[in-house]
Amino acid sequence: MKAAIINVTGYFGIELARLLHRHTEVELTQVTGRSAVGQKLGEAFPHLADIDLEIEAEVTNSVDVVFSALPQIASAEALIPFVEKGVRAIDVSADFRLKDASEYEKWYGVPHAKPQLLEESVYGLPELNRGEIRSAALVANPGCYPTGAILALAPAIHEGLIHEDIIIDAKTGVSGAGRGLSLSAHFSEVNENVSAYAVDGHRHLPEITQELRRVGTGFEPRITFLPHLIPMTRGILNSCYATLKDGAIAPGPSGIEEIRALYKSFYKDEPFAQVVDSSPMTKHTLGNNKCIIFPNVDLRTNRLIVISCLDNLVKGAAGQAIQNMNIMFGLRETEGLEQLALYP
Amino acid sequence: MKAAIINVTGYFGIELARLLHRHTEVELTQVTGRSAVGQKLGEAFPHLADIDLEIEAEVTNSVDVVFSALPQIASAEALIPFVEKGVRAIDVSADFRLKDASEYEKWYGVPHAKPQLLEESVYGLPELNRGEIRSAALVANPGCYPTGAILALAPAIHEGLIHEDIIIDAKTGVSGAGRGLSLSAHFSEVNENVSAYAVDGHRHLPEITQELRRVGTGFEPRITFLPHLIPMTRGILNSCYATLKDGAIAPGPSGIEEIRALYKSFYKDEPFAQVVDSSPMTKHTLGNNKCIIFPNVDLRTNRLIVISCLDNLVKGAAGQAIQNMNIMFGLRETEGLEQLALYP
Amino acid sequence: MKAAIINVTGYFGIELARLLHRHTEVELTQVTGRSAVGQKLGEAFPHLADIDLEIEAEVTNSVDVVFSALPQIASAEALIPFVEKGVRAIDVSADFRLKDASEYEKWYGVPHAKPQLLEESVYGLPELNRGEIRSAALVANPGCYPTGAILALAPAIHEGLIHEDIIIDAKTGVSGAGRGLSLSAHFSEVNENVSAYAVDGHRHLPEITQELRRVGTGFEPRITFLPHLIPMTRGILNSCYATLKDGAIAPGPSGIEEIRALYKSFYKDEPFAQVVDSSPMTKHTLGNNKCIIFPNVDLRTNRLIVISCLDNLVKGAAGQAIQNMNIMFGLRETEGLEQLALYP
Amino acid sequence: MKAAIINVTGYFGIELARLLHRHTEVELTQVTGRSAVGQKLGEAFPHLADIDLEIEAEVTNSVDVVFSALPQIASAEALIPFVEKGVRAIDVSADFRLKDASEYEKWYGVPHAKPQLLEESVYGLPELNRGEIRSAALVANPGCYPTGAILALAPAIHEGLIHEDIIIDAKTGVSGAGRGLSLSAHFSEVNENVSAYAVDGHRHLPEITQELRRVGTGFEPRITFLPHLIPMTRGILNSCYATLKDGAIAPGPSGIEEIRALYKSFYKDEPFAQVVDSSPMTKHTLGNNKCIIFPNVDLRTNRLIVISCLDNLVKGAAGQAIQNMNIMFGLRETEGLEQLALYP
Repeated sequence: MKAAIINVTGYFGIELARLLHRHTEVELTQVTGRSAVGQKLGEAFPHLADIDLEIEAEVTNSVDVVFSALPQIASAEALIPFVEKGVRAIDVSADFRLKDASEYEKWYGVPHAKPQLLEESVYGLPELNRGEIRSAALVANPGCYPTGAILALAPAIHEGLIHEDIIIDAKTGVSGAGRGLSLSAHFSEVNENVSAYAVDGHRHLPEITQELRRVGTGFEPRITFLPHLIPMTRGILNSCYATLKDGAIAPGPSGIEEIRALYKSFYKDEPFAQVVDSSPMTKHTLGNNKCIIFPNVDLRTNRLIVISCLDNLVKGAAGQAIQNMNIMFGLRETEGLEQLALYP
Repeated sequence: MKAAIINVTGYFGIELARLLHRHTEVELTQVTGRSAVGQKLGEAFPHLADIDLEIEAEVTNSVDVVFSALPQIASAEALIPFVEKGVRAIDVSADFRLKDASEYEKWYGVPHAKPQLLEESVYGLPELNRGEIRSAALVANPGCYPTGAILALAPAIHEGLIHEDIIIDAKTGVSGAGRGLSLSAHFSEVNENVSAYAVDGHRHLPEITQELRRVGTGFEPRITFLPHLIPMTRGILNSCYATLKDGAIAPGPSGIEEIRALYKSFYKDEPFAQVVDSSPMTKHTLGNNKCIIFPNVDLRTNRLIVISCLDNLVKGAAGQAIQNMNIMFGLRETEGLEQLALYP
Repeated sequence: MKAAIINVTGYFGIELARLLHRHTEVELTQVTGRSAVGQKLGEAFPHLADIDLEIEAEVTNSVDVVFSALPQIASAEALIPFVEKGVRAIDVSADFRLKDASEYEKWYGVPHAKPQLLEESVYGLPELNRGEIRSAALVANPGCYPTGAILALAPAIHEGLIHEDIIIDAKTGVSGAGRGLSLSAHFSEVNENVSAYAVDGHRHLPEITQELRRVGTGFEPRITFLPHLIPMTRGILNSCYATLKDGAIAPGPSGIEEIRALYKSFYKDEPFAQVVDSSPMTKHTLGNNKCIIFPNVDLRTNRLIVISCLDNLVKGAAGQAIQNMNIMFGLRETEGLEQLALYP
Repeated sequence: MKAAIINVTGYFGIELARLLHRHTEVELTQVTGRSAVGQKLGEAFPHLADIDLEIEAEVTNSVDVVFSALPQIASAEALIPFVEKGVRAIDVSADFRLKDASEYEKWYGVPHAKPQLLEESVYGLPELNRGEIRSAALVANPGCYPTGAILALAPAIHEGLIHEDIIIDAKTGVSGAGRGLSLSAHFSEVNENVSAYAVDGHRHLPEITQELRRVGTGFEPRITFLPHLIPMTRGILNSCYATLKDGAIAPGPSGIEEIRALYKSFYKDEPFAQVVDSSPMTKHTLGNNKCIIFPNVDLRTNRLIVISCLDNLVKGAAGQAIQNMNIMFGLRETEGLEQLALYP
């Protein structure tokens, strides 16, 4: 199998290249990147020196699958011709995630380039949508925050355990903001600092709402989602809070065990969703495709607290894209994704 | 005026020394620290080389005020004799914060050494309790988390704007854990990492509850408080979530302005509680005694979000202790605390 | 006394403002900054909210001293009119440091705007040039690296102890690169990383050579200077290596003591050059105007190793500029510079 | 093939486990660790949850190769019985690196447990000693600093280009200090800080000297080696300085090209020693087994500067140990070591 990456020159793109290089069934045959056309991949990114490819302006080869790591809007434009030609495509950006074109326009500020594709595209969260992904022509790879937040909350919603008021307090490393320069990613501003951003609404909120709504029949989540920037490069930790319905679980510590058993059962066949019994840390996922999920109950207030963590560039982006590719093409789902987290 | 510090050798103690050194009305005349008896302060802590004092075993001089930076339990033991002798005392640890001795025993695991002192001691949060602090013989300096959390929520509770369900998601630098060694403060474990801790209840929760209960008549807060450790040395950011009562404020953006005006009015005479109109960062408080407070409303869910930040070793510990001292002794409240934050 | 800062909007500029705010003899009366004209200082830089000034386009007030925190070339242009009008000036940039206009052109790529001023200007390193600074109309504030490197080596050269081959291996935090955006200051690129830069020659080399040449009669230093970028915000540590002349000091450990005594004697009246007996750390200087100097001898190879450290924004820039101002105007030299380092 | 790790519970041990898990020819069958006997590997180290092994007290299984990740002294004790039984062994600690037992005693403070093994053991730096490693019964895996320092200097010494005076200024992340607690690895002390340590001599110096002496006939290096601790977890960068012999290379830039060509030729068949043309960064080696080497010349002083970098836990420890195992057992040398660096 042959694969191409559009816009390899950002952090999502180079992470796709890094992971595909170790995939035994797929060969990366072409990469593009406007800012570095004509350079060898290893000149622009020394850690990729073992990949012998030149960065080109356009994907011109015949490939089985194309990944776009372009920013939104540009990504849709670049991928539509491939989809129309019948090349299966995975969009790492946000262009095909929202099913509702008016929501897209509201959050991204422009009308969608091809609204009819929104119906065909599949939201590529394998733990919830594996069946649809298998046959998808176009997979919309989830955002980094939504991946962890949805996996943290889906079991509780699916089992009808919680009320619809949900708070998601997220903490992220800086690499999610990409390689583009900005004062908010300037070392001296980020280091030894923490702050909330997007305080009036983050674009990942409608994705989370859309997918959680699908999990529970008639469930209309009212979500407050607040992301925080912390001084590290990779990693996202979501702390999710919701009130348990009366009687949903046994009172006291046995209720906690009940919830954990339920979560473990929900994800029991999942290679990359791991439910644990103690507070997890992002470092346990560095460079690796796992999402670690820790359900707990604040017994004083009968509140469910679910903490999830992942590497925003792997399970939150490039790794999940490859997981989706594996599913789409009937490959072993974990192929290319088996390296353990780098710790410490 | 003369002051002594008991247990100068931890991070709270050296921060007290650093700040007192620049205080024009008070002279630091004695410091103790069992692990370093006989050393000059500047030998043990080169940044304090300008303070010409030897670390001793006990406070033997006559002083006007004594600060204890010992851990809980030891702190009560050390301070009680001073209080009994009539020396005014400020406890930077947790021993005199909780008014209810049974709560103390529940959270700290031992009966309180002198429960009758719990009634006399004053919870030293000047913005709420300035009057009592003035005449206090013993001030219990608030915890680092409670300082920011209480200041973030007090105005909303005082005005009756919010329901009793409250979530406080806190992010802290590592220095709050002190100078004692532990794997959870080991550089290679903390760096490039974030995790929640004390997931079954943190000792600062009862303080927060106790003080917020006093702010609103009949207000019985049901608080979930979850602290997170992030890879930085100083700084705490609290993100506080609560549901607004129907009609409490005007709908839409004008409600946000209303809330901010209310907060600004509440703290209008406060030198160290600063209400702002945009998302604050801990770096704006580094080394400085301010608590910056940003009230906002999630208009989609009618939820109040208040973010507060401070330097956990200054307004969250030593700086607030000196503010309390200034109040107790009728000094200018900002004396010794006027240096601007170190930025970047 | 009245002072103005030209280009307050970079890291040097805001640090000058922070320090001047606490100076009891000098009032900061005007600040400029093209990118933020019309904003209050506290809007652009919340940590400076206590300074009630608006950022303006030009210095129009009458002032006693003007600081320029502009980049080189622009700085000369801005300062020349003030110098010509007789306003005493301190240039935090590099425009008046090199005495030789051809060296300036070689390293900075343009002819000097006013070469005759190079003769009048004084290299503002108080420990070596205090006398000249007193009467200077124009002080060229030294670079951050040269300050530490020159102070580390001057005593040994002055006493004729070392040969002329010198290696200076420097490690710096990122703030020295300023507030301007670049990939080399992008958080995700700098964090968890170290690299050498300017490997073919750094502009601070000719300054170091020029000043060390003045210290020793006939001493012609042959310096290799290699700076490294490390993942922290503030701080520079220079490790300086030179071979001791045969018989320059006693053999063995007593030679080390001899060297330290000599260094202590050399700096005995200096408030900000502190000679120590154990390996120093940049954290001992955070926010403070000291340069800490640790002379040592590698007894196996008879090599002198001097390690010096300082805060690049304080003793390496703004603090030293204020020290120079104090000297120029006959104020107490330590005024406004007495705050202890922020530790940890 | 079967392998065991003695003392899996430190950073070297878990890194060996991480890498062996992906090795296709070798199965990790037993791990020991006194502090965690009876725990599953994944309980003690969640990132290793995919390895289904229990931590035991002793290696009792029959294995083909045993790795010791114990500290020195304990490591020799643990490995000697295996070597005597004929099990091939790789010591990640320092016990068999120095050929001279009196040097060992001088630097490690105790007589060597079995001096005759010092003659048999092979210093496991494949780029220099591959032939001997092939048939070694006992491989002494090099220290993290020596690996990078020796690889940086060997070509220049081998070709007779430099004088014997050498300065190695090293910068390291904190993980090299291991998982044991100490104030010098305490987050609040290390973060935002840099300092030199072991200023009177580091134990890695005699290793470097011993191996560089072997590279050049009659070459008696006089090395000053000064390590610095910087605020990051993984990575070492060595900056090595030596004076070029007159006429050793062409003057000017062509001499630089000559040196680089020579270095590239020296390492042309090496999978893990990569010579580059621009200043490298440790981040290009994160989690990967490469040592990147950048030779340069300071044309002003005719000084050779060679910068090398590597991941101290991979090429500087566990990765090199696996490379040695591959060589010892005739496996493909890069097996298990092919993952690209994690960047950013």
